[in-house]
Amino acid sequence: MLPLALTMGDPAGIGGELTLKSWRARDEAGLVPFFALDDPARLSALAAQMNLDVPVREITAPEEAVSLFADALPVLPVRLAANTVPGTADPRNAPAIIGSIEEAAALSLSGKAGAVVTNPINKAVLYGAGFTHPGHTEFLAALTGGDPVMMLASPLLRVVPLTIHTALSAVPGLITDALIQSKARIVHAALKRDFGIAHPRLAVAGLNPHAGEGGTMGKEDAEIIAPALAALRDEGMDIRGPLSADTMFHERARATYDAALCMYHDQALIPIKTLDFDRGVNVTLGLPILRTSPDHGTAFDIAGKGIANPASLIAALKLAGSMAAARAACS
Amino acid sequence: MLPLALTMGDPAGIGGELTLKSWRARDEAGLVPFFALDDPARLSALAAQMNLDVPVREITAPEEAVSLFADALPVLPVRLAANTVPGTADPRNAPAIIGSIEEAAALSLSGKAGAVVTNPINKAVLYGAGFTHPGHTEFLAALTGGDPVMMLASPLLRVVPLTIHTALSAVPGLITDALIQSKARIVHAALKRDFGIAHPRLAVAGLNPHAGEGGTMGKEDAEIIAPALAALRDEGMDIRGPLSADTMFHERARATYDAALCMYHDQALIPIKTLDFDRGVNVTLGLPILRTSPDHGTAFDIAGKGIANPASLIAALKLAGSMAAARAACS
Repeated sequence: MLPLALTMGDPAGIGGELTLKSWRARDEAGLVPFFALDDPARLSALAAQMNLDVPVREITAPEEAVSLFADALPVLPVRLAANTVPGTADPRNAPAIIGSIEEAAALSLSGKAGAVVTNPINKAVLYGAGFTHPGHTEFLAALTGGDPVMMLASPLLRVVPLTIHTALSAVPGLITDALIQSKARIVHAALKRDFGIAHPRLAVAGLNPHAGEGGTMGKEDAEIIAPALAALRDEGMDIRGPLSADTMFHERARATYDAALCMYHDQALIPIKTLDFDRGVNVTLGLPILRTSPDHGTAFDIAGKGIANPASLIAALKLAGSMAAARAACS
Repeated sequence: MLPLALTMGDPAGIGGELTLKSWRARDEAGLVPFFALDDPARLSALAAQMNLDVPVREITAPEEAVSLFADALPVLPVRLAANTVPGTADPRNAPAIIGSIEEAAALSLSGKAGAVVTNPINKAVLYGAGFTHPGHTEFLAALTGGDPVMMLASPLLRVVPLTIHTALSAVPGLITDALIQSKARIVHAALKRDFGIAHPRLAVAGLNPHAGEGGTMGKEDAEIIAPALAALRDEGMDIRGPLSADTMFHERARATYDAALCMYHDQALIPIKTLDFDRGVNVTLGLPILRTSPDHGTAFDIAGKGIANPASLIAALKLAGSMAAARAACS
């Protein structure tokens, strides 16, 4: 079994604390072995400061993590340039933050790690160090290739927003046949290969209220979405829609599909965060590597206080482990 | 205590069945007395056909309903012109359907009924009979005056969409300072007078992802919504926002407000229908009368089969009863 590569994230945020707490939850949560790409000295100091009993063990290669993991947190060293002050991003540590991600991606690409799990970063501080990507995901795509598709997953629901961080007024113009078809294909393939679902069932939300109700409330559902889905069905894909978005996320409705494709940010994120706020995991589909991350940010406001909730990182590690196992079984 | 006036709705739909089942649930659900504005003969026949033990008692004035209610379903007669075929709307019954609504509104306006609870109608069949309103709610507004505001309410959440049945592409252009302020005032007043909340707390969703995140994803949140809310706060209203819509509907977030104002249909209806699909109640605020209705349609496809779920109508009757009591206490 390949260990998972867990990045440092911004060391001024809650990432280190979450890493320590997740390792402590390894048995209870049934986590597969992971190693942190982080600074061993800072993790040891953080554990001591927070009174978390976590033996930190430096490793020199990922494979050492597997046997070590039961007894210590394996850390493949990425040294910080400066001591961190909780809640204060330090540009001197930007190269280490970036390096942790680069190494995790490289180890995953070369088959030495089963998946990459990323702790949250603060993009602003990275821009000064030459980071030119809009975000974490785009950086990983640049490092590994592929066409990234964001999924939010929890034990209750999987959602994929077709558009993400865009003004609502721009959304209708971005919904095209090509967008729907390419994202649906990536999601469908990932559900098979990485989620172990032999015959994935997709449900697609309409853009307009009641999916346009026959064109009386917007034409996009009938003119763009429906034909795109018909084309995919013609290829044999099990994909339904456009559906009235308000009635597709209650318990009985969720039982009828494996993932929901939504047209925009809030349409996808409202249901999952309403249902399962703490256990949402961000999954990047469409890359050659597997990548998950907790569904929250650096939380500078509570960094260093010992009160950060590791539920989302634990869920991210758990899901990454099961995705890596599913992919290994397929290859 | 004033009885509630329950309209017939379309007799080819599930309304009659729901009326019978709701009366049977009166003790278990703690319903206050209501009377149906319906055809006594058809309700008796429906009860017999569905093997529902419901004695139907014709009344001549609403006040008779209160003492009768424990032992029989009180019915203020509105005679049908034609026998109904389940699932098939009959234009000959349109005048009775409309008449039931008109009489319920008149009785409520004149203080003989505590609230109007409406069974679902099929608008198409009414248009042939001269019905010229876009919907049920607008018809009630025309009958009683006022500026109707739709709220969806369940025991878990109350939401108010500021725009409703409009194409998503038209939504940003409809969000104005005047719209936000007028709807917020109506909701605030109703929470006090009809929900018995002395100091209502309102939360307002942003239009764009993350409420625009400082203007990087749409300007409306900063330029229109925020100033409108600031003006309302200056008047002393407890109103927060614009908030990131995806993080405002989980359990801890919901505990911080009494009603959420949302910018459009799916933003409001996704969370409530995801959380509480069967118990959502449609409440019309802003009218001189109180009005609730179940959050579903005529369900022609299952009419006459005895399988309709009365949960939403029961919830509508329950909420109407408590709203009528709150209003009575205030006046």
